[in-house]
Amino acid sequence: MDSSAKEPMFEVAQLAHVELLTPKPDQTLRFFTDLLGLQETEREGQSVYLRAYEDFYHHTLKVTEAPKPGLGHVAWRTTSPQALERRVRAIESSGLGLGWSEGDRGHGPAYRFTTPAGHPMELLWEVAYYQAPVEQQSPLLNRPQKRPLRGVPVRRLDHLNLLAADVTPTREFMQEQLGFRLREHILFEGGSVEVGAWLSVSALQHEIALIRDQSGARGRLHHICYWYGIPQHVSDAAEIMRESGITIEAGPGKHGIAQALFLYVLEPGGNRVELFGDSGYLIFDPAWKPVTWREENMEQGIVFYGGGLPAEFFTYGTPLLEGSV
Amino acid sequence: MDSSAKEPMFEVAQLAHVELLTPKPDQTLRFFTDLLGLQETEREGQSVYLRAYEDFYHHTLKVTEAPKPGLGHVAWRTTSPQALERRVRAIESSGLGLGWSEGDRGHGPAYRFTTPAGHPMELLWEVAYYQAPVEQQSPLLNRPQKRPLRGVPVRRLDHLNLLAADVTPTREFMQEQLGFRLREHILFEGGSVEVGAWLSVSALQHEIALIRDQSGARGRLHHICYWYGIPQHVSDAAEIMRESGITIEAGPGKHGIAQALFLYVLEPGGNRVELFGDSGYLIFDPAWKPVTWREENMEQGIVFYGGGLPAEFFTYGTPLLEGSV
Amino acid sequence: MDSSAKEPMFEVAQLAHVELLTPKPDQTLRFFTDLLGLQETEREGQSVYLRAYEDFYHHTLKVTEAPKPGLGHVAWRTTSPQALERRVRAIESSGLGLGWSEGDRGHGPAYRFTTPAGHPMELLWEVAYYQAPVEQQSPLLNRPQKRPLRGVPVRRLDHLNLLAADVTPTREFMQEQLGFRLREHILFEGGSVEVGAWLSVSALQHEIALIRDQSGARGRLHHICYWYGIPQHVSDAAEIMRESGITIEAGPGKHGIAQALFLYVLEPGGNRVELFGDSGYLIFDPAWKPVTWREENMEQGIVFYGGGLPAEFFTYGTPLLEGSV
Amino acid sequence: MDSSAKEPMFEVAQLAHVELLTPKPDQTLRFFTDLLGLQETEREGQSVYLRAYEDFYHHTLKVTEAPKPGLGHVAWRTTSPQALERRVRAIESSGLGLGWSEGDRGHGPAYRFTTPAGHPMELLWEVAYYQAPVEQQSPLLNRPQKRPLRGVPVRRLDHLNLLAADVTPTREFMQEQLGFRLREHILFEGGSVEVGAWLSVSALQHEIALIRDQSGARGRLHHICYWYGIPQHVSDAAEIMRESGITIEAGPGKHGIAQALFLYVLEPGGNRVELFGDSGYLIFDPAWKPVTWREENMEQGIVFYGGGLPAEFFTYGTPLLEGSV
Repeated sequence: MDSSAKEPMFEVAQLAHVELLTPKPDQTLRFFTDLLGLQETEREGQSVYLRAYEDFYHHTLKVTEAPKPGLGHVAWRTTSPQALERRVRAIESSGLGLGWSEGDRGHGPAYRFTTPAGHPMELLWEVAYYQAPVEQQSPLLNRPQKRPLRGVPVRRLDHLNLLAADVTPTREFMQEQLGFRLREHILFEGGSVEVGAWLSVSALQHEIALIRDQSGARGRLHHICYWYGIPQHVSDAAEIMRESGITIEAGPGKHGIAQALFLYVLEPGGNRVELFGDSGYLIFDPAWKPVTWREENMEQGIVFYGGGLPAEFFTYGTPLLEGSV
Repeated sequence: MDSSAKEPMFEVAQLAHVELLTPKPDQTLRFFTDLLGLQETEREGQSVYLRAYEDFYHHTLKVTEAPKPGLGHVAWRTTSPQALERRVRAIESSGLGLGWSEGDRGHGPAYRFTTPAGHPMELLWEVAYYQAPVEQQSPLLNRPQKRPLRGVPVRRLDHLNLLAADVTPTREFMQEQLGFRLREHILFEGGSVEVGAWLSVSALQHEIALIRDQSGARGRLHHICYWYGIPQHVSDAAEIMRESGITIEAGPGKHGIAQALFLYVLEPGGNRVELFGDSGYLIFDPAWKPVTWREENMEQGIVFYGGGLPAEFFTYGTPLLEGSV
Repeated sequence: MDSSAKEPMFEVAQLAHVELLTPKPDQTLRFFTDLLGLQETEREGQSVYLRAYEDFYHHTLKVTEAPKPGLGHVAWRTTSPQALERRVRAIESSGLGLGWSEGDRGHGPAYRFTTPAGHPMELLWEVAYYQAPVEQQSPLLNRPQKRPLRGVPVRRLDHLNLLAADVTPTREFMQEQLGFRLREHILFEGGSVEVGAWLSVSALQHEIALIRDQSGARGRLHHICYWYGIPQHVSDAAEIMRESGITIEAGPGKHGIAQALFLYVLEPGGNRVELFGDSGYLIFDPAWKPVTWREENMEQGIVFYGGGLPAEFFTYGTPLLEGSV
Repeated sequence: MDSSAKEPMFEVAQLAHVELLTPKPDQTLRFFTDLLGLQETEREGQSVYLRAYEDFYHHTLKVTEAPKPGLGHVAWRTTSPQALERRVRAIESSGLGLGWSEGDRGHGPAYRFTTPAGHPMELLWEVAYYQAPVEQQSPLLNRPQKRPLRGVPVRRLDHLNLLAADVTPTREFMQEQLGFRLREHILFEGGSVEVGAWLSVSALQHEIALIRDQSGARGRLHHICYWYGIPQHVSDAAEIMRESGITIEAGPGKHGIAQALFLYVLEPGGNRVELFGDSGYLIFDPAWKPVTWREENMEQGIVFYGGGLPAEFFTYGTPLLEGSV
């Protein structure tokens, strides 16, 4: 029995929330509330705080008005206050730490940092739980509120996908400083170029994915993803997106990578949003060996069934690059 | 920030396998292979080793011929070899340890113990991975074999549910010695009697549930559960169970507790088997406060929708009690 | 080749609309619009006209305030104006005709009559088609409007089920005067008592069902049914019914008879409403032999899977009987 | 009331069966039985007779070995023996009649003819019903046999789609000689060129579709279609097709035309087979006005959601043309 190996780290618990920037805040808001059934929790300044009906905290999405679409920041919750302190020290020693913020609506102090690829992130422990008003309380004691009667309501925030000029350093940062496990990745050119990586801290196949940004830009967002968990709902969502004039970029279809039943749409502000239609496969193996996809099996990796992905899927991100269409 | 609290324990990773006893091994085997699409990996003595098509290890079910139906044993995999050693010491100090076995087909040394309620269990680290023959390899590199073309194939082992004369001591044992987190429980009589508890070590709502055995017997099984994750499949399963003459005890329906889309059937040997139809809700909150169900909200707790549960659901377990029908 | 047999009659095309009486019109209306996504077309007097998003005509439901719940009337559309004239003559000769009405919002002249069991019905040819306002027009040219963003929207009116003190005369009237075909029926006591019958004029298994009214009352309604056609939606509907405090009488489950995936709820006015979750089986055989269910196979006839039906299912109808609870 | 208009004709009841030619009979047979769960009823000469588990007759598919893939013939059942005689006279007067055959396994005398576009068809009345052996009888008295435990079993034959050098004459022939109703069609170039037409004799949106054969060839098949009626099953089918090495041409996706949830695959003999995943929309309106799709709304007509159709979809048919790849 090999007991000399390094033990796995269990210090980050989950994706807590994402801040999304949008130049069209009213339309972005209507997209998330009328079509996807998100609930507004609070407003302050140029920001609106939203959550899905199975999200337990104050918010999982902060929509902030800005000149361009893109990622505001990403917040991760640790598994304990002690874990937060240890991770802060690790990030500080990596040189990517930015220092503490006092917190925001819905959570306490947060330690800010950037990934090697330039994405603003924060780590936090203290969160405020959502408390539904009486008329919104579900007879399900384990559900934070009733299922909304608007649109095709998503259930919870699932993951996000970031563009990185160089995937490997950010992937390693997430593993080494934060304890993410590598679940799957794409290696091209005989394994020498990592063009995508999927990592998680839980049984989910990924809470974060990284895709190579061929433009070399820093800090861009590929997409955020909310979860249905029920395949039919992603078809229902496709129907209402089509009838509401929302651009469907791809799907419904099933990726081979992550076995994800996907639908990709562009919200009116320009950010790509994925809707995840089933539960994918879950990973419980503590010694999981990362799955490697190479050029020769990318066809089924990209799409196992359900139509292809357009070329833009691999280049479009927010903010858009100067001069791009 | 409260950093003096005890940190959570991450030492058990998953339910590795279950051994089921059956007086009708041929029929039990046909049930699992022809109807649920399990694959036979190996046979030895009176036992057959089986796995579902998304189970990564050698087996998740060991079916063993015995005079009566019931639970053979339950195996948990730790998160590391070091965690195994630490948990063995903890169990030893609890006085419930039984010592090491040399292992079995498909796994290495295992430390044997019993729960306070008398269920045989073991902890292990070393496992053998299933390697599909070429014609059974899926183009999905993250799937251990092709989806079977038999029956309505289940995807993976999900959880088990044990009967305990006294729920609380076994629930506390699972929490304190093994690091399980209490997700939901049922408290009757002003909170003084715990009649059910659901615990997990992962994002799953439970890998183990405990229900009070009103007979006072030791070591009985309520059910094991395999997972579809896709709601339609549990309806498909109900169709083939009905047409194959398999007794459906309850469902398809949805529990309030665990929000589980359930179908309960009795395999020919007499053991109750649950088929889990969706992904339920997943728990990522590291400070999860257990949900408490009481007499006044048991109606929706037991069944949120889909018909009720028969009285036998709360008393039937394997082995059957002497003199029971 | 037997060419001397009587040819089948193709004179009634479809169930056009149903009028429902309710003592709680506001709540009944909110049930149909907020939870089931029906659209209000028009109001007049004590009536509101509604339709589902795949209903092509002006309305399929007329909700009328009345002291008691129950059936206002049922309207059938013929296959041609000539067929209307022929059917009127046939009904007149049966002695059950009541004469012409000038029509109503949404349709032209209608010939009124009652069934032998006392249900008000009418036959009509001229109908007004729904024309969606521009912002409600779907890019699907074959869909009369966009899918609503409210509740879990039903797609179209499917069928109705009437209580009859004596099933057989009304069943024969529907066959002989109107050309309905008997699809399935229940015969008890050696075939001497017909306790249920399912009839249709199209590929649907039934547009009308008749169940014996053990109370001997006349003209009562068992239920009306709207159709989803997608199994998941009936589960979604069950969720929102539960959370909205609507009584679920039974389901989701699957009847053996008609192979219908059912959910039965009581709308706030007291009328039973069925939501039909899949497409059932369709009948194209022009020489269909009615399926006969008897005492010995009623268990699977009533419920193939999904929990049983309560005793009230077989006695509750609207209006309620004096003295019943 | 306009009672001078011509009354609709109700003389053809349904698509009875299709004969498919294949140069690889063993592989074609395994495709239909192992993957789609069809049952073999009988063999004779170079032909095998098959049916789906909800098909009531002796067969709905006759697979016949031949040098090239393609359509053997199509059989329609009339609504009565008298209707058969009338339709035969009408076809005879059109000059496209070929005379009576004595029948085949599973049906009686059939009148043979060709469409203007050269497709062999026949009309018949007498059919043999499938009688399941005892162990295959379902507790559902309205289901001709148990649901198979092989593959992802289809439920019944739904429709077929034929290529026609000139769509209009064949479309008119089906309407005028056989009583089909035009449900939807595609008109290009200001309405002067009909490139597709969908017709039915029942509530189904179509039992036959016609698409323009740009090659000008006669008698080619675009596809036959079996029906699931349950959306999840078409995704399940896509999974097993991918893992079995069967070419998926397109889907799962949803056409705007017919609102059909489609999956198109090529069976090993080369014929295109569609699997229909939901119930589409049904047409009960006896005065249905055909829906017309034009160049400007073809995008949503072709695919409402779910990825596009490859260019070959519009040109590939069987038999293949000399010189084509």
